[in-house]
Amino acid sequence: MAKINAHYLKLEAGYLFPEIARRTREFQAKNPDAKLMRLGIGNTTEPLTPAIVAGLHAGVDKLADVKTYTGYGDEQGFVELREALRTRYAGYGAELAADEIFVSDGAKPDSANIQSIFGVDNVVAVQDPAYPVYVDSNVIGGRTGKGEKGTYPGLVYMRCDESNGFFPDIPKQKVDIIYLCSPNNPTGAVATHEQLRGFVEYALKHKAVIIFDSAYAAYISDPTLPRSIFEIEGAKKCCIELNSFSKEAGFTGVRLGWTIVPKACVCEDGAEGELNRLWLRRQTTMFNGASNIVQYGGLAALSEAGQKECQALVAYYMVNARAIREGLQAIGLECFGGVNAPYVWLKTPGGLTSWAFFDKLLTECHVVGTPGSGFGPGGEGYFRLSSFGHHEDVRKAVESIKTRLKL
Amino acid sequence: MAKINAHYLKLEAGYLFPEIARRTREFQAKNPDAKLMRLGIGNTTEPLTPAIVAGLHAGVDKLADVKTYTGYGDEQGFVELREALRTRYAGYGAELAADEIFVSDGAKPDSANIQSIFGVDNVVAVQDPAYPVYVDSNVIGGRTGKGEKGTYPGLVYMRCDESNGFFPDIPKQKVDIIYLCSPNNPTGAVATHEQLRGFVEYALKHKAVIIFDSAYAAYISDPTLPRSIFEIEGAKKCCIELNSFSKEAGFTGVRLGWTIVPKACVCEDGAEGELNRLWLRRQTTMFNGASNIVQYGGLAALSEAGQKECQALVAYYMVNARAIREGLQAIGLECFGGVNAPYVWLKTPGGLTSWAFFDKLLTECHVVGTPGSGFGPGGEGYFRLSSFGHHEDVRKAVESIKTRLKL
Repeated sequence: MAKINAHYLKLEAGYLFPEIARRTREFQAKNPDAKLMRLGIGNTTEPLTPAIVAGLHAGVDKLADVKTYTGYGDEQGFVELREALRTRYAGYGAELAADEIFVSDGAKPDSANIQSIFGVDNVVAVQDPAYPVYVDSNVIGGRTGKGEKGTYPGLVYMRCDESNGFFPDIPKQKVDIIYLCSPNNPTGAVATHEQLRGFVEYALKHKAVIIFDSAYAAYISDPTLPRSIFEIEGAKKCCIELNSFSKEAGFTGVRLGWTIVPKACVCEDGAEGELNRLWLRRQTTMFNGASNIVQYGGLAALSEAGQKECQALVAYYMVNARAIREGLQAIGLECFGGVNAPYVWLKTPGGLTSWAFFDKLLTECHVVGTPGSGFGPGGEGYFRLSSFGHHEDVRKAVESIKTRLKL
Repeated sequence: MAKINAHYLKLEAGYLFPEIARRTREFQAKNPDAKLMRLGIGNTTEPLTPAIVAGLHAGVDKLADVKTYTGYGDEQGFVELREALRTRYAGYGAELAADEIFVSDGAKPDSANIQSIFGVDNVVAVQDPAYPVYVDSNVIGGRTGKGEKGTYPGLVYMRCDESNGFFPDIPKQKVDIIYLCSPNNPTGAVATHEQLRGFVEYALKHKAVIIFDSAYAAYISDPTLPRSIFEIEGAKKCCIELNSFSKEAGFTGVRLGWTIVPKACVCEDGAEGELNRLWLRRQTTMFNGASNIVQYGGLAALSEAGQKECQALVAYYMVNARAIREGLQAIGLECFGGVNAPYVWLKTPGGLTSWAFFDKLLTECHVVGTPGSGFGPGGEGYFRLSSFGHHEDVRKAVESIKTRLKL
């Protein structure tokens, strides 16, 4: 008799986005004339840029020609793509080898699958609030108890709130695996060198491993802020970094990302290089490489022309971030983020719960956002607005909030 | 202190294809003038076909236009694509719902990841020989002991040899999860309705789940042979099926596949629909959908024009299969498969081990193939030749074997 992986039953049923979709549908059904404005999911809306489009077409053409057709490639991705990424990191002052970089179909799958190279008996720490995949993948991996009211026993929740500028304090207890995300989803906070240094020192001292999600690094315009954890001394010995073309190049649907597992990165029972070898083995066994067509697009995105276009794309969305932030502040709402990050994190007015504010924003302003409590207990009383949208749509949403929200 | 997933250490170090690559490199270095001919990896060589190329270009163009751009889609894939697959299965007499079909980035990742929805305490049975991913993913998942000489304690090896026509006998002991692959990689054997019916009856009786890999179904030309396990009565209650565009449409590098988890498929502790919900949860948490560009290509592959081209592509490779089979038989080698499958499975002459025959074929004929023992203990004494190659290259390889192999 086949038995299921019972860890799945520990997951709380109501995943955030389906519940948002349900309430939104319900409202729309009752108010068919209301024109909804969506600042919810962080989903890109602007078309792929010319250099990337050309790269993708050229990639398709290569596969249409017997002389340039390719089938299975290295599961780790094109050598040229890994070299181009290596060059990017060299620009951050981080010297990496191409075989420390693993191209993938995106940062979400990697952030979920990376836990599988670690044993079940690791204590996992997450920022609170955090991107739900870190938590859910570890629940499925068996490192927690059953969830109740958004909290899973066994996980260490590192509170991020106004008191610490939405960057967690160093854990007081001993933890083994630490997820950090900067620029942060959902809070929009960006870690400084000093803040990251504190965690790297902790990890080195306790032989912990930091899984650093830098999927929004392209949104950092302040040159004093680190875009990679490998800018921090010693980080190669204790850090894994995830990143993506999704938000930088508009690849949310196109699917391309990468993960860096330095050979120097070790853990308790691991010899030098062991985590790198384990991830290589995971990827060669359980993955078959990102689409070659998409990788041609990624190469184009990393070209000089591609990078200029990506910067313009990021700047486009950051116009929205500014409009949202300034609009909210104009009516006296307290908000954070939205400067070097595409997310604006606002404190719900009048002590409303996140879901109560969701309903209020939906019914009064016809704007759909994301309740902070969906990102963990520490998100309660907060709310996320996303800058991904057409200028005109975001402008209308901000105007609606400014004029119709009853405070 | 972070600890690794120690199950990885149970995997045997020498994975098949790296070892083939190592021996091949070594031979080439010593014999720089030898022109190697490769009938090893099952990697497609012919270009994408016109309808698919047009579909992919159109897909790229959609993403280049603000009016048709899309970002994140359903993790389960385009509705139209799932509908098109549903229609295909209806043609096999299998009625499925679109939400029982999950589009993915290929059958390899799915065949590796599907085990993660099952508990650790399941007894897993594999055909022997078998595609190594079934075994390795279950080793990593913790369902075996440490491997020695290609065998993992805890796994049930279902021997496939000449005595049973390379299709396994029904297990005598109780097993919980059964991997079947038809048309088979590596043996090229294709299961009959009756053979599959035996396993479905076993699974229903013991509440076991069959994971049926039909990645080569497009290579079946005999209309009396089943292309899907869902052609068997009762299969929806106990079977999961994996398939792929890789070998049908030349998508080995493009990456697109699908997995079917019927809602009727249950296991011991599972209510109706539970396996379907678990896989949905797995895919929505750990995966972010196949590339939208690639899905446009998949839609084109399933169009009337696309299907005609795919059939021609399959027929092209099957010309090779016939040439290999007839060539080997002409010099008295005993071989199997290669009729409704792209793999020819030959018995090594003179009682040679698989690796000894590998070396012999390489040094005498300059042909690279795949040692059967790489697919499990039951593959010892056999050898796999792949039909994926240009006609001219395969013709030369067969000629070289016929004229230079010392028997």
